[in-house]
This record gives sequence, structure tokens and C-alpha cells, in this order.
Amino acid sequence: MSEENRRFALAERPKGLIDDNTFVLETGPVPEIGEGQALVRVKWISVDPTNRTWIGEEPTYLPPVRIGETMRALGLGEVIASNNDRFPVGSLVNGLTGWQDYTVVSDDNPLMVVPDAAKSAPPATLLGVLGMTGCTAYFGMLEIGQPKEGETVVVSAAAGAVGSVAGQLAKMKGARVVGIAGGPEKCAWIKEELGYDEAVDYKADDWKRRLAEATPDGIDVDFENVGGEIMNEVIGRLNINARVALCGLISGYNETGRPQAITNFHKLLINRVTMKGFIILDYYHRFGEAIRELSQWVSEGKLKSEQTVVEGFENLPHALNMLFKGENKGKLVVRIAD
Amino acid sequence: MSEENRRFALAERPKGLIDDNTFVLETGPVPEIGEGQALVRVKWISVDPTNRTWIGEEPTYLPPVRIGETMRALGLGEVIASNNDRFPVGSLVNGLTGWQDYTVVSDDNPLMVVPDAAKSAPPATLLGVLGMTGCTAYFGMLEIGQPKEGETVVVSAAAGAVGSVAGQLAKMKGARVVGIAGGPEKCAWIKEELGYDEAVDYKADDWKRRLAEATPDGIDVDFENVGGEIMNEVIGRLNINARVALCGLISGYNETGRPQAITNFHKLLINRVTMKGFIILDYYHRFGEAIRELSQWVSEGKLKSEQTVVEGFENLPHALNMLFKGENKGKLVVRIAD
Repeated sequence: MSEENRRFALAERPKGLIDDNTFVLETGPVPEIGEGQALVRVKWISVDPTNRTWIGEEPTYLPPVRIGETMRALGLGEVIASNNDRFPVGSLVNGLTGWQDYTVVSDDNPLMVVPDAAKSAPPATLLGVLGMTGCTAYFGMLEIGQPKEGETVVVSAAAGAVGSVAGQLAKMKGARVVGIAGGPEKCAWIKEELGYDEAVDYKADDWKRRLAEATPDGIDVDFENVGGEIMNEVIGRLNINARVALCGLISGYNETGRPQAITNFHKLLINRVTMKGFIILDYYHRFGEAIRELSQWVSEGKLKSEQTVVEGFENLPHALNMLFKGENKGKLVVRIAD
Repeated sequence: MSEENRRFALAERPKGLIDDNTFVLETGPVPEIGEGQALVRVKWISVDPTNRTWIGEEPTYLPPVRIGETMRALGLGEVIASNNDRFPVGSLVNGLTGWQDYTVVSDDNPLMVVPDAAKSAPPATLLGVLGMTGCTAYFGMLEIGQPKEGETVVVSAAAGAVGSVAGQLAKMKGARVVGIAGGPEKCAWIKEELGYDEAVDYKADDWKRRLAEATPDGIDVDFENVGGEIMNEVIGRLNINARVALCGLISGYNETGRPQAITNFHKLLINRVTMKGFIILDYYHRFGEAIRELSQWVSEGKLKSEQTVVEGFENLPHALNMLFKGENKGKLVVRIAD
């Protein structure tokens, strides 16, 4: 066990992509625990698009990380000392660990013990398909999107952590599923491995035409991860009574204040579309239910997942930028300890 | 009874506001009726923002009016000859009469006999608060907006036909209601006559600051009639779990293809907003229920309405432009016969 706690603190708010000045690496003593608390050795850190929104000026669904504060992030770790029976030594816990080696479970920072149904899964999976990521796809697709047999579903960022799960869930419901992803490799992966019916490469010049060809009967459900021009094109093809599950707007996360120029906005009215934004934390009390079902599907081989693993604590800032450059396939995680 | 049928036919699709070349006035014989049909003398014509969307290039929720075809519009008339027991001579009927003196009720053009509950109301009211307009406010506000006691509701185009009713319905549910309208006279009217809590004049330089002052606790329901910059500002002040009833986007109806530059789009996501577009025709089978309740409220003096009446068939095109110049207060109708 390391005698020090490394942490990345926010040094300045980035404009655009983060750079060498955004975070500062600091070391300090391993924290001590008080009554009712537990000490966690963080081992894996989840890298999510929403992390970028937490270091902007503007409050989102959580207050912005303050200058000097440890970067906020989800992670997975092991309890190594405990004054709380609910967190016995050796148990795996999941929650807001931050970008640091050690974190303290307390009333202010209530991590979740990994449910039995998921415990035997590989650690990276517990941050992905069997963690917050899988739950995001689960509630967004099944409760908001509500795909029905024979409907056409489009998922943007379809090779990303959430998108790659969301599309498979829509397939299970009998929908025709079209994914939008960047580059031929990701497109091949979602079709051949994940079972998407069609893949549209948004980096290809003719992607709009391809989207139209891939959705000859229009679009009934948009699982929206991207926003901007891609969302606009999808909205333009929505059918009457379509649903939009507004999960992410990653195209704008590095360009705050840039307007979403939506020429097809009127289609939401004409076609009686229901668009619903959601934040997965609102479903926290129902994670157990989702993870049980997702675990079942994974164990039956119905639901596939992939992880991109970056090694080493020092690579956390680089990993965050990878998301916005589309350099990950499936869930992106950083392993910071064995 | 006039021996001729006057009609305005679409001559060319307008760019921007309609002008003298948009319609051509033609006269022809009064139509004859066949089996199961009824002949209606049209007396009042309803002038609605959506009329403008029907003469664009692009299909909306109805196919565009064809060049040479009679302009489509809602109207109110009296049955003057009938081969159908459901439409006895002398009965008042409501529906898509078009811009013409006479129309034929048939299977293809099923007008609705005015319900008993509403029959004694002034004719202009039957196209307004007790017609399609009132139903639009009723279902949009009560079923989509769902205002609750103490919540803040914003209505744009609040002095318009639909908006003026929608705000009063939200007041009945115990909400704090803020209207956005153009000019001091309309603002005074919605506050003093209709009981809005606050009015914001969007023609005043400081309207954004005024909107912020008028909604100190944010906005829980947006009854959206306008779109564009006004909608963007309202979206920027939406609370968590807010609802947007997307009823109209009148600011864009004369400028097809102009993007809605929505800088606050991300708020829909962060604040878990549900936005739902709706078209009142989808609620056609429930009009009876709405009109019964609206009639009751009108007769009890709880629900007030106003009509702007333009006299004369020849003024129909001018009346349509009045809407987009904000020259009406409440429901705009054209009387074409006594």
C-alpha cells in the first residue's frame, strides 16, 4: 500500500480541450477515517463525457469542481479499513471517488457496495455495462425511448460506452437499430459485434445521405448523445410521436455558449415529438433493478461490451481528452492500481 | 343568399409575409350537394398562425395547400341545405371551411355540429375559447404543461388567442403565471383583465431582465407559442423537471429554414426537461369534454376571452398578416356574412 495519496486538483478552467495547465498533480498523506467511515483504495476510474461539464464555469446538475479541489469522477475501489459494518474490509465499492488514490466513504460521500449479481464481473465492466454507464443506457432507452417491435431507433455516439449498450437494448425489444459512429472500424464493430442493423460513419462526406438511406421509414426513437449537427439531422427524420432521450450533447462540451443551430426544430412540433432530458443520478434508487437485469443479459451473452483501458494514474487528463477525440471504443477506464 | 361562391385560391407560395400575389380571388357557382352531404353558408373564418405553415413548400402535419386550391382555414357556418340527418338545416357547424362563402360537408370534409353546451355563445367565441383555440390551450396546458399549485408558468404570445386562454387555465390550477406579449397595452390587458401575475413586454429593450425579475424562482412550465429568441430565454430559466408544451413557433413561420439558434439547449438535458410538441387535431375525439368544461368556466365568469373581428371576405389575406405583426388581441376572426 502506497504511503501517499496522489490527486489531480483543478488548477484552471479550460477553454476547449483540457491541457497541461488544467490540472495539477499533488501528493499528500493517506486520509484517516473517523467514526462510521471507511477508507477505500481506488483502483479503476471511469472516464465520462460529463466530467468535462463539471469543470466549466456554469453549474450543471452538480456544482462545478472548485479550483484546488480534487477532480470529481466515478471510480471503483476496495475497502481497506473500516469503521462501518456496511462497508466491510475487502468489499468492492463504486461511486464518486475522484481522481485520487484513496477516498473516504462517509455520509457526505456515500459510495455503493457492488451488488452480488455483478461482483464476479471484470472490474472495468463494473464501471461500464454493469455500472452507471449501463444504467444510463437502460433507463434512457427503455423508459424514455420505449422502442417497440419494428420501430427504427437511432443511437448517436453508438460505439461509445452508453451508446454501445443502448443500441443492443433496443435490438432486444425488436427494433431496427441504426448507429452513428466515427470511422469505419467503429462502424464495423457495432454492426458485426453488437448487432446494429446499420451504421453511419459521420466522418464520411456523404453521412447525411447514408443516414437517410439507413432510415427509409424515418426515425421513431433518438437516443441522443451528441447534439449539434448530428442531432439536427436526426430530428429532421423523426416520425410522428417519436421520442428523443436526451442523454448527452458531447459535441458542445468543449465549446460552452456555442448555440445549437437547429434548423429542424419545428419538426418536434409538427411531429408531436416528446424530448426528455435525463440525468442518471435521478434513477439512483433503481440501479439495483437495472444492474440485476443487465447482469443477466451479459451472462446469457445477449449483451456485449467492450472497454478501452488506459494504464496509469498520470494518464487521467489525457484519457479525458480521448473521449472528445473519439479515441475510445466502448467504456473508457483508467487503471490506477492492481 | 348570394348566388356565387367567392373563394381565395393559392396563387403562389409566399416568401416571408403574404402579399397581393399570394392569393387570387375567384368566383364560381354555389356547389351542389350529393347524397349524404350538406351545404354550409360560411359566416365566420378563424385566422390562425398555423394557416401560414400550410402554404409553405414543406408538408407539415397536413399536406401543403396546392397552387390553385382554396385556402384552407377553420370556420363557422350554418347548414342551408342537407341530405344528411346529422346536419339538419339551421344547425351551426365548425371545421375546415376554407376561405370561401360555401362549403360542402361530406365524408371527406367532416365538419362538427357545435355542441349544445356552446350553442348560445357568440359566434366568434365558437372559433375562439369554445373552439379549436380553447381546446389547444386546454390540452396543451392541462395535459402537457400540468401546472401545479405554486409553480411558475410562462406563456409566450400571451395576448394571442391560445395564450390568453392558456394563462387563465394555469391560474385556475393555482400557478403563478407570467405572460410575454408585445407592447404596453397587451401587457396591461393580460394583467388587469385576464389575471396574469406578471407581464413582460418583449418589445422593450430590457425584456430579458424583466423576464428574470418576473420569474425569481425559475420556470416550471413553458407554454411555447413563439420559438426563437424568446423561447431560448425561457429555456435558460427552466427548473428541474420543467415541462415545455410546444404549441407554436410563430417567430419562424415567415422565415422557413432559419435556424433556431438555441444557446440554452443544454438546459433541457441538465434540468431533465420534458418538451412535447402537439397538434390539436390529435385531440379531436376529446373536444366535447374540453368544450363542456370551457363553456362552464366562461359562463361562471372564470374564463375571459376577447375577439378581434375583421369585417369582410376581401380582408382575409390582410387579416392573416395581422397575426404576424401582432395586431390582434385575443382571437382573430373575419366575418364574411351576417
